[in-house]
Amino acid sequence: MDAEAQLNQPTDAELIEQIDGALDGFICDKITDDLEDAVCYALFGGGKRIRPLLCLRACLAVGGSVEAAWPAAGAVELIHTFSLVHDDLPAMDDDDLRRGRLTLHKHTDEAMAILAGDAMTALAFEMLAVNIQDAETSRRCAVKLSRATRDMIGGQVYDTFGEFPESWDDMTRLKMTHSDKTGALLDASIQMGAICGDATQQQLEALEKYAYAIGLMFQAVDDLLDVTQSAEKMGKATGKDAEQGKLTYPGLLGIDGTRAEIQKLLSQALDALSGFDTKADPLRDMAKKLATREH
Amino acid sequence: MDAEAQLNQPTDAELIEQIDGALDGFICDKITDDLEDAVCYALFGGGKRIRPLLCLRACLAVGGSVEAAWPAAGAVELIHTFSLVHDDLPAMDDDDLRRGRLTLHKHTDEAMAILAGDAMTALAFEMLAVNIQDAETSRRCAVKLSRATRDMIGGQVYDTFGEFPESWDDMTRLKMTHSDKTGALLDASIQMGAICGDATQQQLEALEKYAYAIGLMFQAVDDLLDVTQSAEKMGKATGKDAEQGKLTYPGLLGIDGTRAEIQKLLSQALDALSGFDTKADPLRDMAKKLATREH
Repeated sequence: MDAEAQLNQPTDAELIEQIDGALDGFICDKITDDLEDAVCYALFGGGKRIRPLLCLRACLAVGGSVEAAWPAAGAVELIHTFSLVHDDLPAMDDDDLRRGRLTLHKHTDEAMAILAGDAMTALAFEMLAVNIQDAETSRRCAVKLSRATRDMIGGQVYDTFGEFPESWDDMTRLKMTHSDKTGALLDASIQMGAICGDATQQQLEALEKYAYAIGLMFQAVDDLLDVTQSAEKMGKATGKDAEQGKLTYPGLLGIDGTRAEIQKLLSQALDALSGFDTKADPLRDMAKKLATREH
Repeated sequence: MDAEAQLNQPTDAELIEQIDGALDGFICDKITDDLEDAVCYALFGGGKRIRPLLCLRACLAVGGSVEAAWPAAGAVELIHTFSLVHDDLPAMDDDDLRRGRLTLHKHTDEAMAILAGDAMTALAFEMLAVNIQDAETSRRCAVKLSRATRDMIGGQVYDTFGEFPESWDDMTRLKMTHSDKTGALLDASIQMGAICGDATQQQLEALEKYAYAIGLMFQAVDDLLDVTQSAEKMGKATGKDAEQGKLTYPGLLGIDGTRAEIQKLLSQALDALSGFDTKADPLRDMAKKLATREH
């Protein structure tokens, strides 16, 4: 039996339905029709909703409600989707496929993809400002999300241009890239959920450790899938990282070394949750599932 | 004697110095070096700081202080600059020059220009969230700025793709494009300043009318300069709007008709301020100056 059923927490599928409904309702009639079509194409393209799920589960783990955290969950998915749309652009990673479908700039055109990404960022901050009831909670979430967004962009700069301080060795460079590029937004997802659930400072610090470990783990798994999976299964081009000479876990540690690193990071994530009761079981399950995505 | 001196309000030059100092101090060490260089190239490229000045003057007009409004003033300039950087991109307006210098994507490259624009948006919302003292004021400003940003992007969609509802005549299309593309952010500048100065609802409504009139006036003047000025004087390519078949005031009303429209809009702007005392004189002066930019 899954943890959520034992705890009377909603299932992932139920939460995803709520998140999608909230996003759809929020975006409707806020932007011009063409732009809305573009935003919705990117936003409802089969994403796994990992970040909003982490946000809602973190809120539930500290004793909060789904209702308290849905604006933060929606906002983080908007920021995540904007980052994918811009990263896929010809001037950036130049990807034609994403989740088995054409990327947005291939589906519409480049100008619309740039504008849709920009619109999603604005909508994310609007969602936090308009829909979180308490002003101080809304502000604290905006601090987390804005900082995570600029750190994520900094990570993309490292990833795209590879210009690191000379003193950093390859493993430091890899970790800094990923802790910014992937980890910052995962951390914001979890922290915002916890803030919306009125978490204590001690809980926030524990969740930060959890987020850091699963952020690196997430990227290590992604790197591994990039070298071990077919493009068909991934729904996007694979093997590109190595071709482009990017720093990756398998490139630095080998395939077995990467698998060992993933297990180490999983242990760290679970250890970070040791002070939480069973309400955090779905977060524990998510860490395990993220560690064992097919590879 | 200028209005600001009579009122003991700081001069525009003094306010611009404060805004630039605030922006520079805020951005420093928040993003990776390359990204900071790109952001600063765009941000400190000789902009006239019209939006932050409107923000600060609106705050002063309702009896507030410069200190209360500087985070909003900085944030709106970041959003304005991001929009210029993205609008200049090859996939959008494809401009090589801006304020007499290379546009950011020509100065660095396209990927960095996309990322710098994205970073500026995040930094703008961070500035509001972190630096406005009162949480509710911070939240109200974030609502204004996020909505204006997505409306501005909607205006850019109209401007780039020209797909309007069929029922709109050309003048409606022109006004909708400009009220979104230019007006929304000017309005947010003024409204945020007034909110930071604890404006009454009546003051906010009057300033909204002022903002609407100067927003359209600003664009009418811009359109006029595009057909009457040399590229050298403007610091960017001119005559492009007509070439690209865009809707413009001179295209719809002729040059004399556009001049008459500018005078009408100036009267509307000044009428909107009739309930304000002399503390709003710098706002009155700004409207007059915007109406008589060289054309």
